Amino acid sequence: MAAENEIFPWVALKTWVENIFVKNDFSRDDAQLAASVLIAADLRGIDSHGVARLSGYLRLIEKGRIQPNPLIKIIRETASTATMDAGGAIGLVSAPKAMQIAIQKAKIAGSGWVAINNSNHFGIAAFHSMMALEHDMIGFAVTNASPLVTPAGGRERMLGTNPICVAIPALNEPPFVLDMATSAASNGKLEIAERAEKEIPEGWLIKEDGSKSRNPSELKNKGMVLTLGSDMEHGSYKGYGLSAFVDIFSGVLSGANFGPWVPPFVSFLDPAENAPGKGIGHFVGAWSIDGFREAREFKENMDLWIQRFRKTEAMDINNPVQIPGDNERNAEVHRKVHGIPLNKKVHSDLLEIAEKYQLELPK
Amino acid sequence: MAAENEIFPWVALKTWVENIFVKNDFSRDDAQLAASVLIAADLRGIDSHGVARLSGYLRLIEKGRIQPNPLIKIIRETASTATMDAGGAIGLVSAPKAMQIAIQKAKIAGSGWVAINNSNHFGIAAFHSMMALEHDMIGFAVTNASPLVTPAGGRERMLGTNPICVAIPALNEPPFVLDMATSAASNGKLEIAERAEKEIPEGWLIKEDGSKSRNPSELKNKGMVLTLGSDMEHGSYKGYGLSAFVDIFSGVLSGANFGPWVPPFVSFLDPAENAPGKGIGHFVGAWSIDGFREAREFKENMDLWIQRFRKTEAMDINNPVQIPGDNERNAEVHRKVHGIPLNKKVHSDLLEIAEKYQLELPK
Repeated sequence: MAAENEIFPWVALKTWVENIFVKNDFSRDDAQLAASVLIAADLRGIDSHGVARLSGYLRLIEKGRIQPNPLIKIIRETASTATMDAGGAIGLVSAPKAMQIAIQKAKIAGSGWVAINNSNHFGIAAFHSMMALEHDMIGFAVTNASPLVTPAGGRERMLGTNPICVAIPALNEPPFVLDMATSAASNGKLEIAERAEKEIPEGWLIKEDGSKSRNPSELKNKGMVLTLGSDMEHGSYKGYGLSAFVDIFSGVLSGANFGPWVPPFVSFLDPAENAPGKGIGHFVGAWSIDGFREAREFKENMDLWIQRFRKTEAMDINNPVQIPGDNERNAEVHRKVHGIPLNKKVHSDLLEIAEKYQLELPK
Repeated sequence: MAAENEIFPWVALKTWVENIFVKNDFSRDDAQLAASVLIAADLRGIDSHGVARLSGYLRLIEKGRIQPNPLIKIIRETASTATMDAGGAIGLVSAPKAMQIAIQKAKIAGSGWVAINNSNHFGIAAFHSMMALEHDMIGFAVTNASPLVTPAGGRERMLGTNPICVAIPALNEPPFVLDMATSAASNGKLEIAERAEKEIPEGWLIKEDGSKSRNPSELKNKGMVLTLGSDMEHGSYKGYGLSAFVDIFSGVLSGANFGPWVPPFVSFLDPAENAPGKGIGHFVGAWSIDGFREAREFKENMDLWIQRFRKTEAMDINNPVQIPGDNERNAEVHRKVHGIPLNKKVHSDLLEIAEKYQLELPK
């Protein structure tokens, strides 16, 4: 398989995505926001969550499952908490809006938390968490997602890859940004292996009957992903616990769906009947550092933390220990200069969209 | 190795522990609290964190590293946040006191968060988180601990087993209580293997030189524990990220020590020189459910969540999928009736303490 990638300049690609959203009845502001979140994924090297998802989103808009012009409402509120009914919005729009509210609350009350229901996929969690950084706050974002992952000891799709993201500012060092799926492998890694027709490590997924598999295509064949830890001996019950925590905060606390009832991302599968909640849920928040400690002091200590951890004695002297967020930041620096590579499948998807909306793809 | 366990009634054992703390200059209230936390671990089957630690705590008190009569101060505060200087207290006392403050704040502001510095080991995290349950709140507790764990890609002790605990109430179902070390194996599991002189699974620890080992005694020989995920392919960088998140919240945000500077638990090792902070740190908090959603509705949905997850198609029909906290609750039900089994080593430790303080161990 020749997997030649075409390269696209990020600013022009972002503007194009924005215009596609406008053509789909998004307000200019919402289109800009949604495009920013999507392109942030491509810039940070999380290709599975970037423009690769655009055609999927557009199909969900066509089906009426994503509202381009949603009525977003705060339906409950205290000094440090709120619940948002996103009115069927795309998460690319609802999550940053919720994060803004969380940050405002944290400015006054020391912390701020917003649970979001009636939403859809929110792109990369890091975009939302990282909004807190410039306010000297620690950002937090989790979301549930279409069921694909089995609880430890089970063989049934009950959970999404349910990411946890925490973004923590430093002073002279770049921020600490942990953005991780609670499954043994992320969707992105599975997609890459599938595209390359490569075997995956044992411990990432199992077949429908519960037996082990190293074939990523088993996911198309009712297979399922394992939780972080992979097997009981190595703590898969912990990965399950973390994924469950994300599901409960995103789904149960917000009034969205949870577990096997989370609506599927693909437009050709219908949402479950008798679903207990509304749409997909997220949970975002911010802690103001100043609520605990003088922010400058904290950030100086974060520099020390980061510098000391970089100096950890490494297993391989050519591969120093990294700080969460290093890879993504390096990708961003590179891609801002050299452009965003898109594989053939994504490229041809975008060309189709370009033709449909008569908006030429930038080169 | 004959590992005959003697059985002790929990109430009498708790009173005895309380009296030992009083003999060590704890106030009656603090002694009662500390004994409750310690016995909660034994009741819940987390034997490594119960009375097995008493002799270690007493040696730290003797050395002046734990203050029996600490001056606990709130040194910073907002509506939903606070920082506590625990004055060298044992964490068994400072953490529940901090949790009480978090709960008070959550009653008024919707959530409450307390970072604690200048503290010592806090026992089982679940005790603190679970304090939130009766208030219809979700409890959260993390702590850093003596370095024993290497970051992914490293071979140096930089992190503790740094647990994360979240306790979530349900209505008719028992609560969801996730209490997990962020390492591939907890201290407790390693101790059990070591006592039984049993091989451990590959992926739990490595030797000083970074090579794999299945011998739990390597920990006494400068070996180190791996993070959840065990190796890069299976996501050890995620376990590292979670452990780092716990370390930063417990240590950096509170002004306590962090990373390799966290003081050792054993009294024969001295704390690091030039340590950047004060003592060990914890971070506890509570979200008021009512701040997001009517509590009864939430708890009804939690019942549904729990019931549905119990019905997950199981790998083995005789081992249904569990809900986090099931094992510990079952142990507690059993041990409240049948008593707490203590192994020979712990038993003889307690007999020594009994003799020293002239307080007979209950039978």
